[in-house]
Amino acid sequence: MEVREYTPASDEYAYTFGGVAPVFSVRPGSALRLWSDDAFGGKLRSIDDLSAEKVDLRFVNPQTGPFYVEGAEPGDTLVLHLVDLEPARDWGASATIPFFGGMTSTDRTVSLQASLPDTTWIYHLERERNTVAFEARFGEQRFELPVAPMLGTVGVAPPGGEVRSSLVPERFGGNMDTPQMRAGATVYLGVNVEGALFSLGDGHYRQGEGEACGTAVEGAMTSTVLVDLIKGGAPLWPRIEDDDHWMVVGSSRPMEDSWRIANAQVVGWLSELYGLHPMDAYQLITQIAEVPVANVVDNNYSVVVKVAKALLPTAQAFGGIHAELRALARTL
Amino acid sequence: MEVREYTPASDEYAYTFGGVAPVFSVRPGSALRLWSDDAFGGKLRSIDDLSAEKVDLRFVNPQTGPFYVEGAEPGDTLVLHLVDLEPARDWGASATIPFFGGMTSTDRTVSLQASLPDTTWIYHLERERNTVAFEARFGEQRFELPVAPMLGTVGVAPPGGEVRSSLVPERFGGNMDTPQMRAGATVYLGVNVEGALFSLGDGHYRQGEGEACGTAVEGAMTSTVLVDLIKGGAPLWPRIEDDDHWMVVGSSRPMEDSWRIANAQVVGWLSELYGLHPMDAYQLITQIAEVPVANVVDNNYSVVVKVAKALLPTAQAFGGIHAELRALARTL
Amino acid sequence: MEVREYTPASDEYAYTFGGVAPVFSVRPGSALRLWSDDAFGGKLRSIDDLSAEKVDLRFVNPQTGPFYVEGAEPGDTLVLHLVDLEPARDWGASATIPFFGGMTSTDRTVSLQASLPDTTWIYHLERERNTVAFEARFGEQRFELPVAPMLGTVGVAPPGGEVRSSLVPERFGGNMDTPQMRAGATVYLGVNVEGALFSLGDGHYRQGEGEACGTAVEGAMTSTVLVDLIKGGAPLWPRIEDDDHWMVVGSSRPMEDSWRIANAQVVGWLSELYGLHPMDAYQLITQIAEVPVANVVDNNYSVVVKVAKALLPTAQAFGGIHAELRALARTL
Amino acid sequence: MEVREYTPASDEYAYTFGGVAPVFSVRPGSALRLWSDDAFGGKLRSIDDLSAEKVDLRFVNPQTGPFYVEGAEPGDTLVLHLVDLEPARDWGASATIPFFGGMTSTDRTVSLQASLPDTTWIYHLERERNTVAFEARFGEQRFELPVAPMLGTVGVAPPGGEVRSSLVPERFGGNMDTPQMRAGATVYLGVNVEGALFSLGDGHYRQGEGEACGTAVEGAMTSTVLVDLIKGGAPLWPRIEDDDHWMVVGSSRPMEDSWRIANAQVVGWLSELYGLHPMDAYQLITQIAEVPVANVVDNNYSVVVKVAKALLPTAQAFGGIHAELRALARTL
Repeated sequence: MEVREYTPASDEYAYTFGGVAPVFSVRPGSALRLWSDDAFGGKLRSIDDLSAEKVDLRFVNPQTGPFYVEGAEPGDTLVLHLVDLEPARDWGASATIPFFGGMTSTDRTVSLQASLPDTTWIYHLERERNTVAFEARFGEQRFELPVAPMLGTVGVAPPGGEVRSSLVPERFGGNMDTPQMRAGATVYLGVNVEGALFSLGDGHYRQGEGEACGTAVEGAMTSTVLVDLIKGGAPLWPRIEDDDHWMVVGSSRPMEDSWRIANAQVVGWLSELYGLHPMDAYQLITQIAEVPVANVVDNNYSVVVKVAKALLPTAQAFGGIHAELRALARTL
Repeated sequence: MEVREYTPASDEYAYTFGGVAPVFSVRPGSALRLWSDDAFGGKLRSIDDLSAEKVDLRFVNPQTGPFYVEGAEPGDTLVLHLVDLEPARDWGASATIPFFGGMTSTDRTVSLQASLPDTTWIYHLERERNTVAFEARFGEQRFELPVAPMLGTVGVAPPGGEVRSSLVPERFGGNMDTPQMRAGATVYLGVNVEGALFSLGDGHYRQGEGEACGTAVEGAMTSTVLVDLIKGGAPLWPRIEDDDHWMVVGSSRPMEDSWRIANAQVVGWLSELYGLHPMDAYQLITQIAEVPVANVVDNNYSVVVKVAKALLPTAQAFGGIHAELRALARTL
Repeated sequence: MEVREYTPASDEYAYTFGGVAPVFSVRPGSALRLWSDDAFGGKLRSIDDLSAEKVDLRFVNPQTGPFYVEGAEPGDTLVLHLVDLEPARDWGASATIPFFGGMTSTDRTVSLQASLPDTTWIYHLERERNTVAFEARFGEQRFELPVAPMLGTVGVAPPGGEVRSSLVPERFGGNMDTPQMRAGATVYLGVNVEGALFSLGDGHYRQGEGEACGTAVEGAMTSTVLVDLIKGGAPLWPRIEDDDHWMVVGSSRPMEDSWRIANAQVVGWLSELYGLHPMDAYQLITQIAEVPVANVVDNNYSVVVKVAKALLPTAQAFGGIHAELRALARTL
Repeated sequence: MEVREYTPASDEYAYTFGGVAPVFSVRPGSALRLWSDDAFGGKLRSIDDLSAEKVDLRFVNPQTGPFYVEGAEPGDTLVLHLVDLEPARDWGASATIPFFGGMTSTDRTVSLQASLPDTTWIYHLERERNTVAFEARFGEQRFELPVAPMLGTVGVAPPGGEVRSSLVPERFGGNMDTPQMRAGATVYLGVNVEGALFSLGDGHYRQGEGEACGTAVEGAMTSTVLVDLIKGGAPLWPRIEDDDHWMVVGSSRPMEDSWRIANAQVVGWLSELYGLHPMDAYQLITQIAEVPVANVVDNNYSVVVKVAKALLPTAQAFGGIHAELRALARTL
């Protein structure tokens, strides 16, 4: 099976979902290998590169894409299977951008306090040990941490003619920043416009849940992706399936609303999969849901509600396409 | 080592943290085996028992205790190691109490809508398979789920002369409703009053993260607990340690505030354990924290921030008392 | 009509709602003249008195009371009519207490930032002009502002055996910090325990809506109050009536929940007063409610929803007791 | 002075801020008289017109515009003075749209409950008495309420290439739904794109604070507007000035964040106007701010923080342009 490769030039980066012409068309069933720059556009390369000087928050999370999916119409379900995520550089960067992040006042949770120090951390990748190294900036500590590549941002064009920054997580996906978005995961996104116009980027070599300071180990990434399409069946919010879990990502504010959104979608999904009455599905997830927070730093906070497949009888979502794509991925 | 057993009579149940005289004194270093009734006081015994008729929300989560810990003074750290949690009945109950829970309007998130149906589910325990059985109330489905016993409520008397309902999770612990409160866990609670006056209850035979409908598989529990005391060192918020993780539980509203609380405490804890500057600890947890939601249904929402010990060099918290208590537990 | 006067000694101050023995009993229909100390217990007397040194946040908002109301039983309605509020000192104080207030991170909305400077402002009362003078601490500006006395805190003992700090606004009233609590207002509070056990304090010589920095022009106050009782009819949340408005105060977090609470109560109140269906009352308040924020700084945020009597036909709440107490007040 | 009149055809309505070509250019200093349709596009004309059948939430709040302001560049301040708002029909409409509004679960604050009944209210305008009549749908009550015309929506194109629905209130203005947006008010909006591209619509014949059910007395409106431009000085969030108050509108979630935003902006504004240190301005607004809630129903909640000019010495904002435009308005 052919894998189409694409590396955007820096003037081809997209900074919004919607509002950008597609770079090319892809047929459902095809494979892509996409290079994406890091969230900072590669501008933080040493600890002396400060975000206040190098980063313009209107132009972060550069997207690779968008791609026009042939035949995709509003109401359809875009299916993206992440076959492989490979760090494309030997280092990643993280930074405490002034008034951005979870443990500081922000432009929304405003205070009159001074900002935290604008600081950059560089993580060196040790490929043989598959680690990135945390090196303290205010001390001498050095801890190697396992590489765990993920994509912060996967999304489609929004409905209603809206155009949203690539910093936003919403119904259309976007900057959800969940570690669940890793190799082996299949993402289901409702299509809002002809061609779906999906894009991806914001690779993380690893990220904790919540993404506390606002930036993970941000790194350029080479993502191998299978693209497919299901006619109809558009989920209201992004769903993720891997071999072990069904998941929904809700993104809103306050964080309890993100949770309510994802929870209701999981209730609906389990109702479909098992013929459960919503009240029974509600009862069931009360006892079995796992709820890892994704991000508490973006303009919407994202919460994942997930259900372990092992707890329930076998069932197939979206016609069993996840298993098909897993099998197909092995042939690449 | 002697284990003191205690089963309260129903007129000995406590329904608050603070405001109740201790049932007896315990010496630091001693072991207790405590029977606690379920959150409903055992009143929901069949699917025909409705919460509206049988449950008075002012008298739920009956506590076993409080216990006076000898020598405990404000500013000290109460240490409770959960050796074993054993379901004390062959069934548990769950219910969708009108206007209580996460997927309904409540007395706080008020709406003018009608309530969801007041429904009771009974879970039968299969001891040989170590499962509880979900049985649908609006359909025929039946799924057996692994038993995973935990305590919803562990707490001490609050400071400042306050007395709080056993439905409340707060700095003093209380109704945190996290599945992390299971056998093998050591809980650290700041002491606010002489004797600490701790109590526990609200056993769950299993619970999903978030406790979506507001009630887990509620069941009477026999808890074997080691009680110890560290002079001074009181943590501001409850900390939990097990063999694999350091954890802090934050409880407030909105849910992002619960997360901020727990995150800041973990920053502080890692700073202590590794001599990290707070900015470095902030950066580090950004890449390694796990954030499972505990409850989104109580009058404070609880979020756990946890760090896997395996990711960092060996370190000892509270003088290594967790390992000591684990060893001691094996002798019981 | 006799007016009973009471000035507590400083060791008679109460710092909680509930948990304190009454200072004396009052018969419904009687009048009290109560001296209350300021929120800081009078400890901030000059700009050199810093809150970090002089104020212990566990002992602020000293209450005058509690008073036992004869015949008051759970489910009854305590009626307090504020006849007159008179500044009892010639100065008031305000302070930006570290990590307390609305434009700073707090112990709940935690950040890692440094606190704002601990600063005290003293407001001198000009009795002839009826003003208090704002004097800048970081500049030379001086603005005289009209005195507008109000009580931050009016409450009864909570239900369920709870005891709450006098910093808390809740169903039982408490630290609502709304400028609506001024002379001419009648407050209706549901009785939770025998004797109601009401107290008041936290006088403000004036306060903006939101109480942004966390402390108003805090001043000792002499409050003349008529005390009455209606058997039954306990409102779920505090209601206030004056000559012009019906009002309800909701207190929770996040702030939209405070609003939802108060809104639902006003829907219910208008339904009672005019025989409206709740859907019609909901529609009506959509077009006529006024919603001044009360506080965004306490452990619950308080929002007032009010309806101008002039917009609707004449109606009587609680049997027209407000008008009766207004008339009675004129005889004092 | 000439007043340019414009009534859009229904296929000229705009449903977004940004993403729409301007209908014409206006020179700073000119006057416009603009007809705008109601939020429902005029589709709810009787109580038998139900929102579920007639209203598509992707196409509500039709905007009149956008207009290209000559010379406006990013960083400039667009100045719109509302000279007159005149109801353009003899009736207005309001509706409880399923899962939209403040006293119902929504697509964000999700629950599993059934929706409230989809109901339409028609308000007849009595021009001689200047009232609109509330007529109960579930009873016989009829109350005439004063007409108090305002615009729900006034905004410019967003920055960063974003395009936002006309349901959204944000930094660029938009659907703020505050009764302060009435004749006599001057609005200051930061310009984000060349020409500013402002539009307006969503006239309300009256609205309570909070807009509880989600829809005011929605009515077509004829708005007379003076358009002006100040080079530079773009405020971060929308400011409003009238003869009596300085105001800022903050829009976010949760509602305390809207308040924090507006409060910080008022601190900054008073600091500019009076040379106050931010700490002194913070202290000052603590004692003088008024905080009327605007909306708690849109995808951002809006809160107004306002300061009465009468409390402070005379000062001029934006070079005194409000007074100039007031004078100019009298000449129309």
